[in-house]
Amino acid sequence: MSITREAYRDGMARLAAAVNVITTDGPAGRGGFTASAVCSVTDAPPTLLVCLHLSSRQNDFLRGNGVLCVNTLAAGQSQIATLFSTRDLTMDQRFAVGEWLTMATGAPVLEGAQVAFDCRIVERLERGTHAIIICQVEQVRMGDHPDALVYYGRGYRRLGQKD
Amino acid sequence: MSITREAYRDGMARLAAAVNVITTDGPAGRGGFTASAVCSVTDAPPTLLVCLHLSSRQNDFLRGNGVLCVNTLAAGQSQIATLFSTRDLTMDQRFAVGEWLTMATGAPVLEGAQVAFDCRIVERLERGTHAIIICQVEQVRMGDHPDALVYYGRGYRRLGQKD
Repeated sequence: MSITREAYRDGMARLAAAVNVITTDGPAGRGGFTASAVCSVTDAPPTLLVCLHLSSRQNDFLRGNGVLCVNTLAAGQSQIATLFSTRDLTMDQRFAVGEWLTMATGAPVLEGAQVAFDCRIVERLERGTHAIIICQVEQVRMGDHPDALVYYGRGYRRLGQKD
Repeated sequence: MSITREAYRDGMARLAAAVNVITTDGPAGRGGFTASAVCSVTDAPPTLLVCLHLSSRQNDFLRGNGVLCVNTLAAGQSQIATLFSTRDLTMDQRFAVGEWLTMATGAPVLEGAQVAFDCRIVERLERGTHAIIICQVEQVRMGDHPDALVYYGRGYRRLGQKD
């Protein structure tokens, strides 16, 4: 027994998540895309995972470079999230907005991100239509912005009061 | 090169996430805990993952039962999140608050959750200190509550305005 894709997607639209721009650079070229499917695995050693559809051209960049940076966006940065999730745009068009630095791995780090996790890819598992990309975190950069951007109900929201 | 656990944890405190109570029931007994490390993997077939520390007693329940429900909490339910993350409480004490139903798998489903994903565990990977538990979603139940609860900056928050 299982449910339809639509029922699953409607359910997942209710799982609030941080908004991240995943970037990479190296011999395979510069890539970047918006993702909410990012999750901490363990702090020993510091490890996170990112899920990505197998049909995405971003897989080639990530496999060729072996590194990525998870740039977690701050409130007010939904425009960047939209840029990096607009299918028609080239990588140059996506990276035209914002100031980009590098840290340990060479993957682009967004100046002003809420936090950035600079990572080396250590494992790639394929399950169904998606890759689960497991990454070891080599550097973390904390931004100055006080609050987060959240993806919920298929739209971008700011945080509100304490519960 | 890597970073300290503390630096990683401080960074992860800035990755906003839904607040979920993961429940299970069956031959190994009833279990339940609060988790933010939940992430969609694919919609074909509907699959999600949950990360859990290997030292948690919850592993025995999950392995013995082979099923779990991800109950994503709504705004106003942070008290339940606190209950299910208080180490000293027995399972009976945790389940004493709220109304609990069952769907396909028999795992407890919280009446009033924002959404509930009733799942069968299909794979378990161990990486570092944690298990990555991969689950196929058998049923989804949508709640009536209009808004989400978010874990951010080591506290519970409601959602605010659109970005």
